[in-house]
Amino acid sequence: MTSKFVGSNSKILEKANLLKSNNLYPFFRAIEASEGSVITFDNKDQIMIGSNNYLGLTHHPHVVEASIKAIEKYGTGCTGSRFLNGNLSIHEELEEKLANYLGHEAALCFSTGMQTNLGALSAICGPRDCMIFDSENHASLIDASRLALGATFKYKHNDMESLEEQLAANVNRFKNVVIVADGVFSMTGKILKLDKVIELADKYGAIVYVDDAHGIGVMGEKGRGTMNHFGVTEKVDFNMGTFSKSFASIGGVLSGTKESIDYVKHTARSFMFSASMPPSAVATVGACVDVIMSDDTIHPRLWKNVEFIRNGFKEIGFYTYESETPIIPVFIGDDLKAMQVTKFLGDMGVFATPVLAPAVPQGEALIRTSYMASHSIEELTKVLEVFKMAKKEFDIPGIHH
Amino acid sequence: MTSKFVGSNSKILEKANLLKSNNLYPFFRAIEASEGSVITFDNKDQIMIGSNNYLGLTHHPHVVEASIKAIEKYGTGCTGSRFLNGNLSIHEELEEKLANYLGHEAALCFSTGMQTNLGALSAICGPRDCMIFDSENHASLIDASRLALGATFKYKHNDMESLEEQLAANVNRFKNVVIVADGVFSMTGKILKLDKVIELADKYGAIVYVDDAHGIGVMGEKGRGTMNHFGVTEKVDFNMGTFSKSFASIGGVLSGTKESIDYVKHTARSFMFSASMPPSAVATVGACVDVIMSDDTIHPRLWKNVEFIRNGFKEIGFYTYESETPIIPVFIGDDLKAMQVTKFLGDMGVFATPVLAPAVPQGEALIRTSYMASHSIEELTKVLEVFKMAKKEFDIPGIHH
Repeated sequence: MTSKFVGSNSKILEKANLLKSNNLYPFFRAIEASEGSVITFDNKDQIMIGSNNYLGLTHHPHVVEASIKAIEKYGTGCTGSRFLNGNLSIHEELEEKLANYLGHEAALCFSTGMQTNLGALSAICGPRDCMIFDSENHASLIDASRLALGATFKYKHNDMESLEEQLAANVNRFKNVVIVADGVFSMTGKILKLDKVIELADKYGAIVYVDDAHGIGVMGEKGRGTMNHFGVTEKVDFNMGTFSKSFASIGGVLSGTKESIDYVKHTARSFMFSASMPPSAVATVGACVDVIMSDDTIHPRLWKNVEFIRNGFKEIGFYTYESETPIIPVFIGDDLKAMQVTKFLGDMGVFATPVLAPAVPQGEALIRTSYMASHSIEELTKVLEVFKMAKKEFDIPGIHH
Repeated sequence: MTSKFVGSNSKILEKANLLKSNNLYPFFRAIEASEGSVITFDNKDQIMIGSNNYLGLTHHPHVVEASIKAIEKYGTGCTGSRFLNGNLSIHEELEEKLANYLGHEAALCFSTGMQTNLGALSAICGPRDCMIFDSENHASLIDASRLALGATFKYKHNDMESLEEQLAANVNRFKNVVIVADGVFSMTGKILKLDKVIELADKYGAIVYVDDAHGIGVMGEKGRGTMNHFGVTEKVDFNMGTFSKSFASIGGVLSGTKESIDYVKHTARSFMFSASMPPSAVATVGACVDVIMSDDTIHPRLWKNVEFIRNGFKEIGFYTYESETPIIPVFIGDDLKAMQVTKFLGDMGVFATPVLAPAVPQGEALIRTSYMASHSIEELTKVLEVFKMAKKEFDIPGIHH
């Protein structure tokens, strides 16, 4: 078969093919088996430090059992939208459970995290409204800003002066002014200065929307998220989270007041016109909340691992961006070197992923590493040993220039 | 908690609340249990004729077993994107299986059908390209046209003269000109005149993108879709399908040439920046293809049911829009009457959903009914009996005015 289609950005494939032919292409690696903290790639076991499985619950017996039981009871899919024929009572029960867990009045589940941002923001931000965006917001928020009818203005990453300038310039020009930011930034692990954001929102009468994809399950008491970490849960108008990280599944949740969530439920197109979460995903997320609530060892284990590995990196002399979360970026510098290091780590039994330009500025490539409650200290010790070898082998600088 | 947020379209909630207080609200009904063709709502069994589970595979033993085994082997989720850490070898195997099944060179799986359209069309249709849209295209295509940088022009629904006018007016003004249309229109069950579309695409050098969400699994030999039904598989540049209908799960697939699919894989943002399909969903879809290939009774059962019910509706004197697919709309007329009929059907043990203005023109409300290979003739006989009572009770006209 042939096609008349010619993409406008064909260089991207040339580059990928060049890297593949040099055995350096670090993307789309096909994982053959997974035990959570250990996966099999290329017939070899590797310690996974490139995942968002922060609580290590994808293989937890209670979670696995709940997921299987839901398939047995409700089948493998709902074959319809929540709006029409795909709304199970377990969807509504999960929403109530999540609202209680997060500390908001109401919650609404979407089929993916991306669709949560796309649907919620285009429902919230109409033609007379605007969004004020952190410059390092996630791709799904950027797409949401393109889909929403309202305008978008950016402030410098986590810079509260810059945010205030944008607020001052725009609050009188628009109806709803919505500050939109990641709670934990996915590539660097940095935490949003949410306490300051709330102060400014109060001062200027703005609405706050937090994408806490990498914060819920991890930050705050029992993983109730970045808003709980700062003690400002009641002040966050909309909190968004995903299930493809700590909650061992796929999907997303938006929480807030009863009224505003009901509004989004009836107006978000990605909610109304997309199939509902399958029963197994619903059950998985519910079981994760149960495990979090009943097992008091998970978060201490997670933070102990994070501290252990962060100190280890510092001792070896890596620059790790002062991360305070389970996401620990390791500065490498050159793009090619980052791919070579990734390949080296893999050969030595460690699976991590590089972040290259343009996702970061040219010359600031990094290896994004992230940790799970279920990593053992032995596994993490091995990770540090391999990184130590890599530092020597590739002459990785300790300081970010 | 309080929120400063005020939605711009608050009348929508007033209307919903009024209907709820009159016990007529026909949306978001919470289903308590499901056996596929029979569900439990309000503690009562109802025959489901509002679903997209055309092949009835959500509860098929082979499909259920495959889905459960995948959870046991790979866990409940992949906690990452295909691009980085969420790419399993079973994702790639499924793509190969689907490409073979559909008759295209290559296939790419997305986490939802909506994200397939959003990501693929915004990758395909850059700033110098344009799309030519059927006026009844699905909501996810409309959102995709807003997200894509290229322009969009509409032609009258399934009107080939109108399509040709748009082609003639635009082929010389843009690089890629992409005709985009549903293969089977989701509300009316009408089939796209794809043979004519292909003729015009050939004549004008346009690219063809078919959203066959309601066609794959159903139309053509072994459910290979609308393109197979018309014998034009090789001529369709991009074919899109979803897994939340015949494939008993959630997700979407784009197929085409190796080169064009590889291009989309490296440029579609909803693919790159969203978590991958969970293992259970991957296994479900693969098992559905296996069942379709090995069980020669499914499609004959489906079409026998469709013919039985369609003839039944005609005998009673309903207008069913000359549907040729398992989607059979029943003309009601007035919005309020459509909700009353929906409530009546429910009370009598039949679950169906109304389609109201503005989804259809004012005064052309309908009940959208749809059928499964797994409905029994007894179930369908009961459905007809209940509709016969409804026709008398509500004086439903037989002819569409």
